[in-house]
Amino acid sequence: MEKQKISSAVINRLPAYLRLFTELEEKGVAHVSSNEISELMGTTASQVRQDFSNYGGFGRQGYGYDVKYLCEQMQQILGLDRTYNMVVIGGGKIGQALANYRGFDKLGFFIKAVFDVDTAHIKVPDGVQVLDASRLGHYASNNLIDIAIICTPKEHAQAVAKNVKDCGISAIWNFASQEVKLDGVHIENVHLNESLFLLTYKINND
Amino acid sequence: MEKQKISSAVINRLPAYLRLFTELEEKGVAHVSSNEISELMGTTASQVRQDFSNYGGFGRQGYGYDVKYLCEQMQQILGLDRTYNMVVIGGGKIGQALANYRGFDKLGFFIKAVFDVDTAHIKVPDGVQVLDASRLGHYASNNLIDIAIICTPKEHAQAVAKNVKDCGISAIWNFASQEVKLDGVHIENVHLNESLFLLTYKINND
Repeated sequence: MEKQKISSAVINRLPAYLRLFTELEEKGVAHVSSNEISELMGTTASQVRQDFSNYGGFGRQGYGYDVKYLCEQMQQILGLDRTYNMVVIGGGKIGQALANYRGFDKLGFFIKAVFDVDTAHIKVPDGVQVLDASRLGHYASNNLIDIAIICTPKEHAQAVAKNVKDCGISAIWNFASQEVKLDGVHIENVHLNESLFLLTYKINND
Repeated sequence: MEKQKISSAVINRLPAYLRLFTELEEKGVAHVSSNEISELMGTTASQVRQDFSNYGGFGRQGYGYDVKYLCEQMQQILGLDRTYNMVVIGGGKIGQALANYRGFDKLGFFIKAVFDVDTAHIKVPDGVQVLDASRLGHYASNNLIDIAIICTPKEHAQAVAKNVKDCGISAIWNFASQEVKLDGVHIENVHLNESLFLLTYKINND
């Protein structure tokens, strides 16, 4: 109940906190203060403390926060203390790139299958199935799938999302260049362009 | 001078504003109030007005803001009223996927060449060159390149970024899973994982 009140602005900062804490841990930093965190995050110490207070405060000690503990806590909050099975829907360039990207496995995210209306010419690593799109429902009812990654052309994204939901998959990571909106399913729309536009902003406003 | 004082939090919201204004324009909405914008952005009307005031306020009228004008202004602010030449460095799965993604052209971003230490087996569309990585300096001195897209393995990303800067390219869009830090060049690090972690947060906190 409490957690539902946490604002999306706070939640959106959590992955950046995890990235920072992981970097600090890799550098061998044992303790960090809210002032140091705020400087590294480009925010204020007050905001850091407020953000943390939503999750119990992370037991700040006299020496500052314990970096290892911060890492563990943030991973747990973000749900990274478990593994996830994923399927890719749309075996084009982006879909294949994701299926072939080895970095997800290390994080506990396993791509099990790629679905497409045309399964020819789709190259995936060993252990990943390539299946006809019509088989998604059957597959999802026989395999525990946590996340569907939508990589279809944009005009199909919304209908595919609806189908994903109907197949009982509860989360969508959408790479199609059309935002997907659907109730009753968790959705993250990837807006690659927006990061590019921040770059052009910098180019033109420096 | 004024623009340098705008906080990164404001700047980071600009692409989402553009996306919203574009959606509204496509739907045929002519005018929109700061209240309506704030609801659609998940923020407050006061923040919307504050954000806009950094860029002159966008001439709010009695009927609310003019959506077409908002689109034009936001495109101009983000530097999208011009075109950009880009090169991809690292012709693996991600690099090829980006080179083959047709969506950039429409936005005025043109991928001119893909560089790799091994140019065999790199498939790109007609009109995109595939060149040996050693030729980047020569290429960049003979072609106006605005943005280098780094798609190398993470262990090479920082050295490649340094080389990009030395070749006189002033902006880097980094897809390597290692954050690149370098002064004197504009950088946007793409953190695909972070959007995935927001999804796992939602899965585990609903």
